Amino acid sequence: MAIQQKLSLMIPGPTPVPERVLEALGRHPIGHRSKEFQDLVEITTKNLKWLHQTENDVLTITGSGTAAMEAGIINTLSKGDKVICGENGKFGQRWVKVAQEFGLEVIKIESEWGTPLNPENFKTILEKDEKKEIKAVILTHSETSTGVINDLKSISSHIRNHEKALSIIDCVTSIGACSVPVDEWDLDIVASGSQKGYMIPPGLSFVSMSQKAWKASEESNLPKFYLNLKSYKKNLINNSNPYTPAVNLVFALDEALKMMKDEGFNSIFKRHRKHKLAVSEAAKALNLKLFADEKHLSPSVTAIKTDNIDAEEFRKKIKNKYDILLAGGQDHLKGKIIRVGHLGYINDRDIISVIAAIGNTLVELNEISADLVGEALKVASFHLKEI
Amino acid sequence: MAIQQKLSLMIPGPTPVPERVLEALGRHPIGHRSKEFQDLVEITTKNLKWLHQTENDVLTITGSGTAAMEAGIINTLSKGDKVICGENGKFGQRWVKVAQEFGLEVIKIESEWGTPLNPENFKTILEKDEKKEIKAVILTHSETSTGVINDLKSISSHIRNHEKALSIIDCVTSIGACSVPVDEWDLDIVASGSQKGYMIPPGLSFVSMSQKAWKASEESNLPKFYLNLKSYKKNLINNSNPYTPAVNLVFALDEALKMMKDEGFNSIFKRHRKHKLAVSEAAKALNLKLFADEKHLSPSVTAIKTDNIDAEEFRKKIKNKYDILLAGGQDHLKGKIIRVGHLGYINDRDIISVIAAIGNTLVELNEISADLVGEALKVASFHLKEI
Repeated sequence: MAIQQKLSLMIPGPTPVPERVLEALGRHPIGHRSKEFQDLVEITTKNLKWLHQTENDVLTITGSGTAAMEAGIINTLSKGDKVICGENGKFGQRWVKVAQEFGLEVIKIESEWGTPLNPENFKTILEKDEKKEIKAVILTHSETSTGVINDLKSISSHIRNHEKALSIIDCVTSIGACSVPVDEWDLDIVASGSQKGYMIPPGLSFVSMSQKAWKASEESNLPKFYLNLKSYKKNLINNSNPYTPAVNLVFALDEALKMMKDEGFNSIFKRHRKHKLAVSEAAKALNLKLFADEKHLSPSVTAIKTDNIDAEEFRKKIKNKYDILLAGGQDHLKGKIIRVGHLGYINDRDIISVIAAIGNTLVELNEISADLVGEALKVASFHLKEI
Repeated sequence: MAIQQKLSLMIPGPTPVPERVLEALGRHPIGHRSKEFQDLVEITTKNLKWLHQTENDVLTITGSGTAAMEAGIINTLSKGDKVICGENGKFGQRWVKVAQEFGLEVIKIESEWGTPLNPENFKTILEKDEKKEIKAVILTHSETSTGVINDLKSISSHIRNHEKALSIIDCVTSIGACSVPVDEWDLDIVASGSQKGYMIPPGLSFVSMSQKAWKASEESNLPKFYLNLKSYKKNLINNSNPYTPAVNLVFALDEALKMMKDEGFNSIFKRHRKHKLAVSEAAKALNLKLFADEKHLSPSVTAIKTDNIDAEEFRKKIKNKYDILLAGGQDHLKGKIIRVGHLGYINDRDIISVIAAIGNTLVELNEISADLVGEALKVASFHLKEI
């Protein structure tokens, strides 16, 4: 049965889950209104704040990362509000759709897929907005569809200078992979999902809300019930939830956050950095081209062009032969790129395996000679030693 | 550590989870866009339709039962629409709040908590609506807060006669506990949640949508994104999901639905019926009074008055001494009733344990003599033999 194959998940989510997290997940559930569960909510909330480097509230929602981003948008804005949406990939596109669905007036700041958003474009538009009509800036930190990381630090400084606009940031594949100092960067709303850097299965998502965001929520007139964050905030005072939460996923979250604290920020972020370098540099050594601008590579996923090879066929070969699941391209990139996830519970062995698998497959297809595979692994090895 | 106590969950959710379901839950996740996961979606969808006794679409959402009910409401209705809401408990109240939040005009049909909704009231209002202005009837089948089951069969027949109005039904604690023949009763939208009769942990919810409901969705103008059921329907054609679903909970769902099919409707429903009778009759033998109208007892939860005893203290004693978690009263019923859940993966031993625990505690409190406990267990035993 395929589910029981010895699968290596090298996609940008769901990511691999450590045994001790799976063990926690598989425990008998407890009552969600019990003292024991309240204790869990208290400690996971504390650790979520640690991970977000913030004193803001961090709320846990049962739902996907999209639910968390929607919650951020519909809890702080009102119909007709003017917002900037950064769009340089599929997720940026999605937030434009959400904003439009809820009747917001969207000013798009676009950049070609594979390239980062230009912070100067945000600066220009925000500075011009003397009447302070722009209510929020919505963007994706790590664009999972293309493997690009946007310069959130710079963009958020321009948002801060505007003073009025809220920042609503999709950090789904950046939290837990690189530093997202929510307080230092003044990020108002930060959304993320469990099946990413958190190292737990999908089903939970998280929203960090600043005081400024809560203040804006007082005036928001968009209808919402399940995703009304005020209900979550009110219940969080008693370490509780407005609706039955995914209890077992909270067991898993607790365990995973403890593992993250044990490993420490430094080690987690360095690990992601060296894996990013190892995969991207090895890909080049294999004569492959990176899809994303090399100066702005995401720490969690590397998109690689397959040129004259059909990317879907290529990743199928790797799945069938080596049990390594890679992601394909989305929308117009389908068949043109593969995306190697190196997010969450990934070790150096996973990295050399995927390089060896990609290399061997290219050799089999007569695309490269075997010595290049050795070269690519050597390059990877150099970066893996880096720390 | 309290989580590892030998806890017996006798609350109306989360309900106990079978070992084989927990084992499935604790497997390594797989990619949600993989063939293997599509196969799982295909089989679970088929089995969900079996459980709902329907040919309608049954969609799986990552979220609580409240998310599923909200989805049913916001996908089929428009601002200003007139709807009837049946309200005889906390969940009935909640659907009124959801309807009002989204700008619907609510006609309430109320009944005192503990009593069932009167089908004749629905008949009268629906028959009077000659202009067919009523767009939906929203109600709760099994009212978890009071242990009352409403006469959905009769009410749905009046909705059918109206022809225009949709039925939007909270079957959260009825599906899997008693027969809910969706097609036979012409139920348009049926919402339920995983941590109930499904025997899996919380985190998934389900919405059954009739053709009439889909037709209505074409005209619905309420804003929605994460809970836009059209996206789920569109993806279900390929056994897929619009957003990353709670993959591991779907593993659990698959296993639990297989267990339910193995046990069969007859046995599942009879088991819930005899447990309901055993608990309610034994409670009376212990000199306790039932909160709900005895002719309309829910198959999944029995609410018991504790009169001069503080119900919260009472259930704390039972938790501390016997590791049995009971539910308390909600809102104005807090401290006045205990609610014994007998929903999902419950066997006869669970039933005699909870009766013995309640009985012993009453004896300890000098409320009754020990012989009544023997009597109550004898009464329970009679009902447990019934099938």
